[in-house]
Amino acid sequence: MAERLTISLDGMGGDNAPDSVVEGAAIARERNPALRFLLYGDEARLKPLVAAQSHLADCVEIRHTDKVVANTDKPSVALRSGKQSSMRLAIDAVQSGEADSAVSAGNTGALMAMAMFGLRTIAGVERPAICSFFPTERGETCMLDLGANVACDAENLVQFAVMGEAFARTAMGIEKPTVGLLNVGVEDLKGKDEVKLAAAALRESTLPIEFKGFVEGDDIACGTVDVVVTDGFTGNIALKTAEGTSRLVSAFLREAFQSSLMAKVGYLFARRAMHKLRLRVDPRRYNGAVLLGLNGIVVKSHGGTDSLGFANAIGVAADMATHGFLAKMRHDFEQLRPAETGR
Amino acid sequence: MAERLTISLDGMGGDNAPDSVVEGAAIARERNPALRFLLYGDEARLKPLVAAQSHLADCVEIRHTDKVVANTDKPSVALRSGKQSSMRLAIDAVQSGEADSAVSAGNTGALMAMAMFGLRTIAGVERPAICSFFPTERGETCMLDLGANVACDAENLVQFAVMGEAFARTAMGIEKPTVGLLNVGVEDLKGKDEVKLAAAALRESTLPIEFKGFVEGDDIACGTVDVVVTDGFTGNIALKTAEGTSRLVSAFLREAFQSSLMAKVGYLFARRAMHKLRLRVDPRRYNGAVLLGLNGIVVKSHGGTDSLGFANAIGVAADMATHGFLAKMRHDFEQLRPAETGR
Repeated sequence: MAERLTISLDGMGGDNAPDSVVEGAAIARERNPALRFLLYGDEARLKPLVAAQSHLADCVEIRHTDKVVANTDKPSVALRSGKQSSMRLAIDAVQSGEADSAVSAGNTGALMAMAMFGLRTIAGVERPAICSFFPTERGETCMLDLGANVACDAENLVQFAVMGEAFARTAMGIEKPTVGLLNVGVEDLKGKDEVKLAAAALRESTLPIEFKGFVEGDDIACGTVDVVVTDGFTGNIALKTAEGTSRLVSAFLREAFQSSLMAKVGYLFARRAMHKLRLRVDPRRYNGAVLLGLNGIVVKSHGGTDSLGFANAIGVAADMATHGFLAKMRHDFEQLRPAETGR
Repeated sequence: MAERLTISLDGMGGDNAPDSVVEGAAIARERNPALRFLLYGDEARLKPLVAAQSHLADCVEIRHTDKVVANTDKPSVALRSGKQSSMRLAIDAVQSGEADSAVSAGNTGALMAMAMFGLRTIAGVERPAICSFFPTERGETCMLDLGANVACDAENLVQFAVMGEAFARTAMGIEKPTVGLLNVGVEDLKGKDEVKLAAAALRESTLPIEFKGFVEGDDIACGTVDVVVTDGFTGNIALKTAEGTSRLVSAFLREAFQSSLMAKVGYLFARRAMHKLRLRVDPRRYNGAVLLGLNGIVVKSHGGTDSLGFANAIGVAADMATHGFLAKMRHDFEQLRPAETGR
């Protein structure tokens, strides 16, 4: 059996909190008996919710606070005045070593600011990035940055490549993850300067990274590489474009099944298969964006997700802690630094 | 009946040329009897293809050239040495006024370079952009730039907004097209500087543009606005991400229908509805990317499309010419210039 893993939870973050948080913790604990939780938030609301979940008996410690970061709070405001917030206390638990990782479905900007302030970036990382994974024709691919940094230089992109590779190797369990830089063409001459410079640096690097050069937008869904690296502006738009397109095709499919009596009958027969298809592209399945590059593991759950989605975010946080993500990444950046200096 | 429209065709551009070009012209002509064609390319190959199409009797003039722009040619090389190429001659026919618009499925970079050189940008436009349209939940939305300019400043983006609005109003037939700037959030403070500056300029502008502020990646498929404006790097990646995601969901759907006997039976019943669904997301239906901002109409067909896709690209070229796109855009930029100076 795995050793005990402690996850600190922002009990009050997200549209469906605290219910989705507590129910999500119960689902995650049922899947992984090694988990225990530090649950931050309003004790009066949390206590009955926890008591109602048999899977959470003896594995949850509620830590009361009545401060909450609002979705409308600016990061700077949250940082200054949210020191006793459920979000901040969950991060502090990672910083102090009490928790192995933290999960919050709250305000992304505030979470990033607090995590950066509390945990700092690891040596060699200039800026953290947001990373998440997606279904592809070949399995799963992760992409970063998804919106932490709207402008990135070549060095940031190289660091994201190292961070993403470590994530794919540990949390996703891929032995030799391949890495590609998102660009508007695969030829060497195409694209923005920072992307071309980053490609040159990754090709020359002594790091044992399987760098495959440039990939294009359609390579994300193809699964051409395991790790897609891009700036936070492009990554955020690509992520949301993919989500929007997936919803659009699903909506067209629903309409098609409603368009005639024959189609409706067809749906009755194909119902189970269509249910499996829905699960396959269900965003809850891929919930859990990771803040990479910090001295600690922090996972951002989608604010609008339900208990199942939140449980999956907890799963990501647990996987990263179990498979030594931080040690792997620190080791990579130690290797990267002399190589960078030597160029 | 509409007046006669002359379209010049690059008979040799594209993976399936010249067959797809000639067959595409026949389909387009069957749909629109006002069309006639100037067809540039190898007469020995084109002549029997044209003769085989009854719809093309008396409406095609073949103009022989044995020069072809290769897909691997750099734009600068094509520009220097491709003066007698089928692509260049098709553009020249627009420049001389012989043709109302030109269509090519050849090398995009070369086409853009030749079109810029031959037609020049219209007064007030600094750089042309590539624009195309997509299916959405509400109907159709167009987006630009899709890759002509990897880096754009605020002024470029404002000009793209004006160009895209004119396209939506004429070629897409939308009376009062709404326009949005692609960004990583809808709040004023989010995103890149050039995007924020462009938004400020569009808000202050005296042009009668229905500017709706920022939109996000998922708004493309939602159809939140009629015109999505972005730089060529982001636009190209968003376009290809959407295409890749659409193919992925379609592949998952095929697998689902194959996954059990019940599902296969379901498919038999729903077959006609699924066929309609395929047509609805068929990339050929949305084939025809327009080079906007030039003193002439040039449409780029996808290089890998077939005759049906090519016919649709001809349809876009014909619609733009019929509905006075150029006059509308010139008028808008005349309005824009004094307003800009006055700021």
